[in-house]
Amino acid sequence: MRTLNVTLGDRSYPIHIGAGLLARADLLTTCLPTPRAAIVSNSVVAPLYLGRLRQTLSAAGVRVTEIVLEDGEAHKNWETLNTIFDALLMDRCDRGTTIIALGGGVVGDLAGFAAASYQRGVPFIQVPTTLLAQVDSSVGGKTGINHSLGKNMVGAFWQPQVVVVDISTLNTLPDRELSAGLAEVIKYGLIRDLPFLEWLEGHMERLMARDADALSYAIERSCANKAEVVAGDERETAASGGRALLNLGHTFGHAIETGVGYGEWIHGEAVAVGMVMATELSRRLGWLGTEEVERVRALIGRAGLPVAGPALAVNRYLDLMGHDKKVIAGRLRLVLLRKLGEAVTWAETAEDDIRAAIDACGE
Amino acid sequence: MRTLNVTLGDRSYPIHIGAGLLARADLLTTCLPTPRAAIVSNSVVAPLYLGRLRQTLSAAGVRVTEIVLEDGEAHKNWETLNTIFDALLMDRCDRGTTIIALGGGVVGDLAGFAAASYQRGVPFIQVPTTLLAQVDSSVGGKTGINHSLGKNMVGAFWQPQVVVVDISTLNTLPDRELSAGLAEVIKYGLIRDLPFLEWLEGHMERLMARDADALSYAIERSCANKAEVVAGDERETAASGGRALLNLGHTFGHAIETGVGYGEWIHGEAVAVGMVMATELSRRLGWLGTEEVERVRALIGRAGLPVAGPALAVNRYLDLMGHDKKVIAGRLRLVLLRKLGEAVTWAETAEDDIRAAIDACGE
Repeated sequence: MRTLNVTLGDRSYPIHIGAGLLARADLLTTCLPTPRAAIVSNSVVAPLYLGRLRQTLSAAGVRVTEIVLEDGEAHKNWETLNTIFDALLMDRCDRGTTIIALGGGVVGDLAGFAAASYQRGVPFIQVPTTLLAQVDSSVGGKTGINHSLGKNMVGAFWQPQVVVVDISTLNTLPDRELSAGLAEVIKYGLIRDLPFLEWLEGHMERLMARDADALSYAIERSCANKAEVVAGDERETAASGGRALLNLGHTFGHAIETGVGYGEWIHGEAVAVGMVMATELSRRLGWLGTEEVERVRALIGRAGLPVAGPALAVNRYLDLMGHDKKVIAGRLRLVLLRKLGEAVTWAETAEDDIRAAIDACGE
Repeated sequence: MRTLNVTLGDRSYPIHIGAGLLARADLLTTCLPTPRAAIVSNSVVAPLYLGRLRQTLSAAGVRVTEIVLEDGEAHKNWETLNTIFDALLMDRCDRGTTIIALGGGVVGDLAGFAAASYQRGVPFIQVPTTLLAQVDSSVGGKTGINHSLGKNMVGAFWQPQVVVVDISTLNTLPDRELSAGLAEVIKYGLIRDLPFLEWLEGHMERLMARDADALSYAIERSCANKAEVVAGDERETAASGGRALLNLGHTFGHAIETGVGYGEWIHGEAVAVGMVMATELSRRLGWLGTEEVERVRALIGRAGLPVAGPALAVNRYLDLMGHDKKVIAGRLRLVLLRKLGEAVTWAETAEDDIRAAIDACGE
């Protein structure tokens, strides 16, 4: 087992990474203020892993409430959140009850926002079971739900007590979701870790073959990168750089997800295309060469990800991007690449360049 | 103008108390990160004061979004909260937009939770226009909405940047709401400030007559008491005492509000009866004498408040109290009075005594 720490003062917490960790009661129980937990999972993950986690906790004397949500980004909304509150209240869960997210990013976002807001905040633990959640959404404290006018528009920063990454759960992950997770893994290389990007170029086939050692290394390196960024800018308030850099490809990606309707494109796929668009836009600003854009496109393609956007009008992209949280005082701030391995936030991009970059990455 | 400070580290903020403060742009604009604000009010308060506040801000160059909610505790729910998010998104309010609550406790709770969760948190300002909000709910950072299974079950701790108490707004406050505010004023005397309790016994008629000096003093003293308690226990995590003491009468009161349906009894009225019940229960534990119980009952009655509960079965009270947030690990923790001016949290009360105290304060 490998353990990293996310350094956030009195909100610091460890990330444990290893095989078979769902059986390790000690990793969880040492974080519970009372022997009472509510596991939030979904209809796909629950049949696979909920019984095992419940058994681990029950054997350690923890009373467990089980809450199984419907699967998918389409359910990341208030109605689903409210079913969590209903279940917590029906089972009389109190302020000492720890909410445990067992699943992917949607489960983590919903369970985390439930933890942040149930009785104005209860303890929270992340047990991510998808690669995307393991390398990204479970680390850093962002939680939330979607609104009909935009993704993740309602939520909270709410740090977990611990993140437990059992890489054995990746054995049941669909190929499409493995690829979606690799999009965020590649992102860390692109924005701040050129050696890791080069390692990925040398090991993509091993990752796609789910080699345990390769996956462990990629997860650890991804979490370490994210933890460093989050430690420096917990609430994404840095004037430039900081946590915002983690959004490489995300402003384009959110437009894709919203534009085609949540769930059609999964998050990692939309981010993958968004990263290609951001890379292309960086080239137009003179920061990258054509061959570097092709290198990025090739790596993303080798991860089984799309490199071209859906059939969506450029004007629709721009309209949807205007609703993104990265808009500050009316200016669209994009994350772009000064070079491979170094990202910047940039609010000076001409609209024509943005349009051209989107166009160049269309179907 | 009097100014107090709530001391909470980097979340500290001032409370300004005075007449005509809605015209003081400087008190607000110094707290805005960008010249962009959304005023949240309700259909009763907006016609009286929204124009004045908007004018003050507009004249100072602040672009204002106006959001007018329906009035009443019955609307303190997700649906209403979502109308705030709709309006913020439709008007493209960004992370630099400050949400200003203009109204009573319900507006403050809704606007505050909206501020806590819109785009994972934006700045917040309280401009309370009821006595209850001025002395209680606008200070301390508690925000939230009701759930069908319990009051304030969903919310956040979210501190304002500043609280601006314009006591001129009390001139239009209905008598019933003035009394409701006095319930919380009396509470501060009961739980931690015997000299203030005695001052209230000497000045209740002046307060009921809305004497400006008396009201200013009572508000300042109440806010000072609340600020001290909140500073010592921001998130209500103290094992005993601390912020929980502010809930004198509230566990009984929440049961009343929920039991008769939100809105029938207003919060201060329910708390008033709850305080009588807590006082009676303290007598049964041998901590107060009969004459002290009568003294409390008399003061509450002179404030125009009910001193007897609604027609609600004792079993219903106990069931509803079991859903309250003050339940820790299955034990009901009540706030009781060791003596007048000194409250304690107490989890050792026999159920028979609770039943008898409720019975003794019935219709």
